[in-house]
Amino acid sequence: MSTETSIAPGPLSHYRKQAKFCWKKMKHFIEDPELLQIKMTVWQTLEKDPVFKRPVELLSTEEMKRRTAIQLNKYCQYNFLAPETANFPYKRKTRFMMTVNEALAVTYPDVSVKHAIGIGLFKNTLTTLGTERHKHILDAAWNNKVLACLALTEVSHGSNTKQMRTSATFDKERQEFVINTPDFESAKCWVGNLGKSCTMAILFAQLHTNGQCHGLHAFIVPIRDPKTLIPYPGITVGDMGEKIGLHGIDNGFILFNNYRIPRENLLNKTADVTPEGDYESSFSDPGRILGAALENLSTGRVGIMQESSNNLICAVTIALRYAAIRKQFAPNGDGSLNKNELPLIEYQLHQWRLFPHLSAATVLRIFVNCFTEDYLSVVEQTTSSDKIQDLSDMVSEIHSLVSSAKPLITWSCRDAVQECREACGGHGFLKASRLGDIRSINDPCVTYEGDNNVLVQQSSNWLLRQWQSLKQDNILSTPLGSCDFLKNHERINKKFGFTSPTQLLSVEAISQLYEYLIIHLIKETEAKQLEVLSKTKCKFTARCETQVYHAAVLSRAYIEYNALKYFWKHISKSHQSLRETLNNLGFLYGLNCLEKHLLYFYQGGYATGPELATFVRENILSLCAKLKPDALGVVDALAPPDFVVDSVLGKSDGKLYENLQNLFFHNPGAMSRPAWWSEIIIPNAPDFKQVKSKL
Amino acid sequence: MSTETSIAPGPLSHYRKQAKFCWKKMKHFIEDPELLQIKMTVWQTLEKDPVFKRPVELLSTEEMKRRTAIQLNKYCQYNFLAPETANFPYKRKTRFMMTVNEALAVTYPDVSVKHAIGIGLFKNTLTTLGTERHKHILDAAWNNKVLACLALTEVSHGSNTKQMRTSATFDKERQEFVINTPDFESAKCWVGNLGKSCTMAILFAQLHTNGQCHGLHAFIVPIRDPKTLIPYPGITVGDMGEKIGLHGIDNGFILFNNYRIPRENLLNKTADVTPEGDYESSFSDPGRILGAALENLSTGRVGIMQESSNNLICAVTIALRYAAIRKQFAPNGDGSLNKNELPLIEYQLHQWRLFPHLSAATVLRIFVNCFTEDYLSVVEQTTSSDKIQDLSDMVSEIHSLVSSAKPLITWSCRDAVQECREACGGHGFLKASRLGDIRSINDPCVTYEGDNNVLVQQSSNWLLRQWQSLKQDNILSTPLGSCDFLKNHERINKKFGFTSPTQLLSVEAISQLYEYLIIHLIKETEAKQLEVLSKTKCKFTARCETQVYHAAVLSRAYIEYNALKYFWKHISKSHQSLRETLNNLGFLYGLNCLEKHLLYFYQGGYATGPELATFVRENILSLCAKLKPDALGVVDALAPPDFVVDSVLGKSDGKLYENLQNLFFHNPGAMSRPAWWSEIIIPNAPDFKQVKSKL
Repeated sequence: MSTETSIAPGPLSHYRKQAKFCWKKMKHFIEDPELLQIKMTVWQTLEKDPVFKRPVELLSTEEMKRRTAIQLNKYCQYNFLAPETANFPYKRKTRFMMTVNEALAVTYPDVSVKHAIGIGLFKNTLTTLGTERHKHILDAAWNNKVLACLALTEVSHGSNTKQMRTSATFDKERQEFVINTPDFESAKCWVGNLGKSCTMAILFAQLHTNGQCHGLHAFIVPIRDPKTLIPYPGITVGDMGEKIGLHGIDNGFILFNNYRIPRENLLNKTADVTPEGDYESSFSDPGRILGAALENLSTGRVGIMQESSNNLICAVTIALRYAAIRKQFAPNGDGSLNKNELPLIEYQLHQWRLFPHLSAATVLRIFVNCFTEDYLSVVEQTTSSDKIQDLSDMVSEIHSLVSSAKPLITWSCRDAVQECREACGGHGFLKASRLGDIRSINDPCVTYEGDNNVLVQQSSNWLLRQWQSLKQDNILSTPLGSCDFLKNHERINKKFGFTSPTQLLSVEAISQLYEYLIIHLIKETEAKQLEVLSKTKCKFTARCETQVYHAAVLSRAYIEYNALKYFWKHISKSHQSLRETLNNLGFLYGLNCLEKHLLYFYQGGYATGPELATFVRENILSLCAKLKPDALGVVDALAPPDFVVDSVLGKSDGKLYENLQNLFFHNPGAMSRPAWWSEIIIPNAPDFKQVKSKL
Repeated sequence: MSTETSIAPGPLSHYRKQAKFCWKKMKHFIEDPELLQIKMTVWQTLEKDPVFKRPVELLSTEEMKRRTAIQLNKYCQYNFLAPETANFPYKRKTRFMMTVNEALAVTYPDVSVKHAIGIGLFKNTLTTLGTERHKHILDAAWNNKVLACLALTEVSHGSNTKQMRTSATFDKERQEFVINTPDFESAKCWVGNLGKSCTMAILFAQLHTNGQCHGLHAFIVPIRDPKTLIPYPGITVGDMGEKIGLHGIDNGFILFNNYRIPRENLLNKTADVTPEGDYESSFSDPGRILGAALENLSTGRVGIMQESSNNLICAVTIALRYAAIRKQFAPNGDGSLNKNELPLIEYQLHQWRLFPHLSAATVLRIFVNCFTEDYLSVVEQTTSSDKIQDLSDMVSEIHSLVSSAKPLITWSCRDAVQECREACGGHGFLKASRLGDIRSINDPCVTYEGDNNVLVQQSSNWLLRQWQSLKQDNILSTPLGSCDFLKNHERINKKFGFTSPTQLLSVEAISQLYEYLIIHLIKETEAKQLEVLSKTKCKFTARCETQVYHAAVLSRAYIEYNALKYFWKHISKSHQSLRETLNNLGFLYGLNCLEKHLLYFYQGGYATGPELATFVRENILSLCAKLKPDALGVVDALAPPDFVVDSVLGKSDGKLYENLQNLFFHNPGAMSRPAWWSEIIIPNAPDFKQVKSKL
């Protein structure tokens, strides 16, 4: 089986042959061929399976839920990972599992979410928070014998988990926990799989015993009889109804009324309640607890980063292939009927609208690939190492990176998809363009698994802590090096000293700008926080009032720079023939991101004259021009097969109008009179075809 | 009947009573009470009519098309304009018609589009391009006896109308035009109402006679038998299938194969073909032709501006009412279970995310209202005045304003809706939030009726022409005054001279900044165009290569400033009690827009130090703080009734959680087992409820 997308010759050849590199070589540089092979296997299998046939028409939500549930079962049966994988070390195994999920998510996002929540996250949570006494449940999960859900969010609380009010009170008499939902506002909601299909929940509830509350803990809670799917008594469970997208997922809500579960249903790796009702915390193995905590927080977010970067790739693939075929206006501007109209990609404005997103797609894809390796290494180490302090530092830094990277990538995807949709003009509004679907798939990613605007505060808080520790104790805890440049803060260039635009086209120059920017923002944020603190005496207020123009931008700049650093490190290993294009993509990404922050350089006194802004902007435009001949080759290297991109505008054959014709002529009922025609007939309407003489 | 939205007391009272003004007074200042009354009549009528009942569940596209078609017929029957309106002067009558459409569009956008295309635009085009010989068709249209469509766009050409290739060739023998579609690429497409329902088309085709092509002309073309809805022979007509939104509209495509229509079907006000086949241009009444041309180009765009500004209002209404109720985290930050959590609106970050959109909603709404008056006055004058030159100048200026205003408002709505969706967190992803629907309603507006990115070039071209005429001949043709400040270009302040942030909080200061910016961009664009021109000798290329960072920003700055000028002029007539709030909204809008352009001030040498950026940003944050107590009052003044906003998150009663509970508990099938439950049962799944002893 080939690991290569096949590229049919056709109208795109004109631009393809301009590329300075072999797209296959580029593809295998961007993505590990072994992982690509795994994806290809998934794609080729699903493409052949009628259960996974994509509908042309809009289905009812009920039908989408039904199909997704059936597809999930079928997907589980495939067992895409080879049997020997089970014995692989943690990192390799998880990477393979993540890759299978990536392949699924980019084609059937609803099935992927159902699987991730109902099986992946369930197994994960049981493994990391459960103990031997939950092994039979874990075994059932591994054998796909149970579909679960994870109930955390409540109707009136999401980000602030401490305020959640679903309670589990220990009843010593009966050796059970009694679960209650005090009111509708504390009903669990947005729980994927809970609406219609799951039979088990991992429920997060406030643990009460002996009159004391010990905070949120995880419990195994049976929801429905697996033989009938009828909910157990004591539960009010339902489906939340229509959403903006992800219609195949049955998001549910649940209220408990004195619902009882055995004492043993508490996931007790970190804490337990004894039969006597005593609460016992069991920090016997801090490394593992650290890893468990990290995994529970971050694995979902790393998954989103992967999925979102794939959606970003699909969006630019569609818009750029369209831009290479779609022609508009002729350079002579006389509008005469000649064949010399220019493809959209020839226009500077169009390049500038799309190429920065192409560069983001490339840089962020490579960043996600490389960062995932680091992430899994850290998790793996937490399960084996004894150096708790180092690990703790590493876990904090990983958390800081994930907390800013998930927002960066999901927002970058959001912006790219919208621009791509607009860049495809009217045809971009066709459902078959797939840009609408990509938009609604990515849309929830900006607010779930940690709201982006809340999440980024974790990174800036971490950076400020690093900064304070560096200043006070000369200690910088950045084992992954994401902010190691802070230690050189006194030596960093604080004045713009470039004399020509091209001097900015280097790793060193872009690094210098980012390092100045990040340090400037750290200092400004710290100063502003101290100022607010001195007025209000409230740390919380101080943090809240330093987000805008300060901490929020700091997190963004920090992660953009780190994405670039991962990218640069990876491309240093690239074949010479790929280097120039990759460099240009990195420069464009960096300068285009920096362009949004340039005011800070003027505010900070780094620049005063026009040169900084002018040089950056000139470079962005000249990089667009340089990338034009390579753009379609980069797209071919990034793009998954046509079956995956699934867009009438973005097929690799470039036969845009033939594909549109096929779509228009064959969509169901396209040329037939609607069944309801007689309901809309206008009584006594004149027939102007017949009254020719009167005209 | 009341012209006031009723405001139920409830949880929003806390913020409502902080407002410095009476929301009803503000409402009647923003919107003419007479027009508001018209809207209320439409809304109250439709709300009561079961034909217009909104479905809770997602309907099939087919069903949405059926309902929309039926609703359109019902809507036409209502004849919302009082009979005496027919005799009103053009301006007043059209304003009333526009108002009825606004009311319809914000509640039933699909019905509004079908009506606008199939009846409104049809009548308009017949009136402006047709003659006496088409009067019987126009009469039928006025009596709602015909549903039409307007076929202009072709599969491979949209913006570049000159390249369209559908042809109408005169056959002298039979005194007919023979219509042909050379190939699929020249099939007409995206034609609203054409897919399933219309019986007539106004077709734009290249007119050929005696072997010569005379360019695009409009023809009346019968499409379907009105008694059977079966298309006539010689036509291949179909529905384009699924779209991202506006599912109720049957967008169609059509190909003609030697399809014949009588000679008289040419709309012949500006040109005709004689029975002998001679082409005759008839510019007998240039004023009227000018008006006709203007109307055909611009009325649709003005309608979009109105509709988009209403959608923007609905979006901020939803997000701000949600922000006033939804609480998150407590200032003490200790997470203890107290009741002191802060509503989102208390957070500076949240204010900064939403208040600029609130200010845009207010400023742009007032701008659209006032501009519509000017627009209709100009159209009215073109039908009566003889001073062609003045009129021509006025028409050009109107065109320049519309060409930048439609993009400004539709893009502002796009950005606001997305931010509002995110600011409502997970609940914003509910279909019942309505933010998804608003997004997909506004989405096509950025690319249809003139693609925004193409359209804005009209404004910058006009500005450059004004500038050149001013420099060369000392003539500035700006009868509406939209660029009258250009004549003072030598006296304009070119150096930042403010010494404290509050100095920027004035009409004069913001005007000074905008005038500097616009003149700077004009000069830079002109210089860059000359530079490219001297290299390429191609005006077309020169214009294309000066869009990014130049002409495109110029158009944007020009229209932002003009929107503000309309706003300022209007608020100068406001009651004293409203003034402070309105001023703050205007300042926030102006400074927040300028903030995006500040780099140009550094590039142009207006500013060098940090003050400009720092002052502007400090003001934005302090204006947010100042507007907090007024925000909910402004929302009440802007918002249409709950029935129109139609959001579970944005109801005026503020009973967020009760409304959510009602939604969750009563959505169809919420708590029932799905019909397909047995299809997803996992064979031999263990029942963990029953094996309690084993846990």
